[in-house]
Amino acid sequence: MVVNMTQKRWKIVIEYNGRPYSGWQRQTDGIPSVQAAIEDAIYNFCQQNITIHAAGRTDAGVHALGQVAHFDLDYGDRPLSAFDLRKAINAHLRDESIAIVQAEEVPADFQARFDAKNKLYIYKVLNRSAPEAISRGTVWHAKKPLDVAAMQEAATVLLGHHDFTTFRDSQCQAKSPMRTLDRLDIIAKPRAHDGQDIEFHLEALSFLHHQVRNIVGTLALVGSGKWTKDDLKSALEAKDRTKGGPTAPSDGLYLVRIDY
Amino acid sequence: MVVNMTQKRWKIVIEYNGRPYSGWQRQTDGIPSVQAAIEDAIYNFCQQNITIHAAGRTDAGVHALGQVAHFDLDYGDRPLSAFDLRKAINAHLRDESIAIVQAEEVPADFQARFDAKNKLYIYKVLNRSAPEAISRGTVWHAKKPLDVAAMQEAATVLLGHHDFTTFRDSQCQAKSPMRTLDRLDIIAKPRAHDGQDIEFHLEALSFLHHQVRNIVGTLALVGSGKWTKDDLKSALEAKDRTKGGPTAPSDGLYLVRIDY
Repeated sequence: MVVNMTQKRWKIVIEYNGRPYSGWQRQTDGIPSVQAAIEDAIYNFCQQNITIHAAGRTDAGVHALGQVAHFDLDYGDRPLSAFDLRKAINAHLRDESIAIVQAEEVPADFQARFDAKNKLYIYKVLNRSAPEAISRGTVWHAKKPLDVAAMQEAATVLLGHHDFTTFRDSQCQAKSPMRTLDRLDIIAKPRAHDGQDIEFHLEALSFLHHQVRNIVGTLALVGSGKWTKDDLKSALEAKDRTKGGPTAPSDGLYLVRIDY
Repeated sequence: MVVNMTQKRWKIVIEYNGRPYSGWQRQTDGIPSVQAAIEDAIYNFCQQNITIHAAGRTDAGVHALGQVAHFDLDYGDRPLSAFDLRKAINAHLRDESIAIVQAEEVPADFQARFDAKNKLYIYKVLNRSAPEAISRGTVWHAKKPLDVAAMQEAATVLLGHHDFTTFRDSQCQAKSPMRTLDRLDIIAKPRAHDGQDIEFHLEALSFLHHQVRNIVGTLALVGSGKWTKDDLKSALEAKDRTKGGPTAPSDGLYLVRIDY
């Protein structure tokens, strides 16, 4: 085996607005994706065709403040600092809704996906009658008032180790529906003129496909008074997606932090 | 004089992203403005050509979370609630970056501009190396680290009643350069991965043209270590625009609240 001594493994932390993209994963036929945009930016600054590996593949329209990915770069004899690498990629992402907010050299066996110990997702809701004007597509606009205390109280039934079949997409590829939800906090701030901003903070080692959006969509049924805490408990215990609430839109979902 | 008994005066509170617009004021030749968009929306739901009067004319690219305007509407015998009025205008603003967040009927002599008792502007800075990815154009991206404590300490020289010639645009139409700055707080929050979010909160009965942006641009000189508090004091006392710092970009400026 030839060991390439000038190859380095890099870990990058990425912020993006998911709206213009079909999701994280590179698509055929030039459909815009976050992965393709970053790989193209890297190619454009150093002419290397590399593949970047993310901690998780976010869906179309889902945003990130702290997506993590790793990749290997052969930079020959020229020294390249983490700061310069980040700056170079960002310069080539100028026309994208993507920014590299951190870069660091990591050991050659670092794996963004498999080494993750904890993930934080935040789901943002604009809860008022009037739509969002400043940056549409970055929150879920829920018009009817939501009772945050009722949602927070009901949310306790979802904490801990459960079969989350009710809250995973029917197309989810994960082998097991068992997951451990370590945190589900709901934080509300009144707005100056009308309504409130609500954030759902969810932490777990890993999540099922659409798990956060299905949980938020179901908790909104509790918040609007249609469901009780007991209804939520029955839905969880049914282990049946058709017994859960609707999937909240991608607009409000942010992958915020991944711990290693 | 014929008194129109079915005419009502309305006060509306408006949120907008200033980026797509040439500013508040209606322009000739169909150049997009916030005023024209709202007047057109009102025309489209009730076929009345009315003029709306704002508390202040924001410049191109400047945002609002709480702009206030008034207008008179003749709605005949049909009752129209504030809620329905707001909903109808918002429905016709669907393709704009504008939302009416509050509407209320006010006495026929209410004047959005002249009755204002206090205005709050917030100026938002993203202070980190990497650019903004989620919603570009909604903050000033200042790459070099800014010392918030130094800026806050220096800012005290601007509080109170002063001749603000140094901080007003050379084209400013106000008769007097005297203004009373009642509040200038600088609030910083560290970001998870890199840098900090900084907000400048300024309150006064009224502001001169570009006053907030010129103050922020000058305080940034203090934050980056180029100026001392004494330099800021000398600049204020010079009563000369050419002795002030640069005008911070429109991207970060928000008209947040007007008190009556």
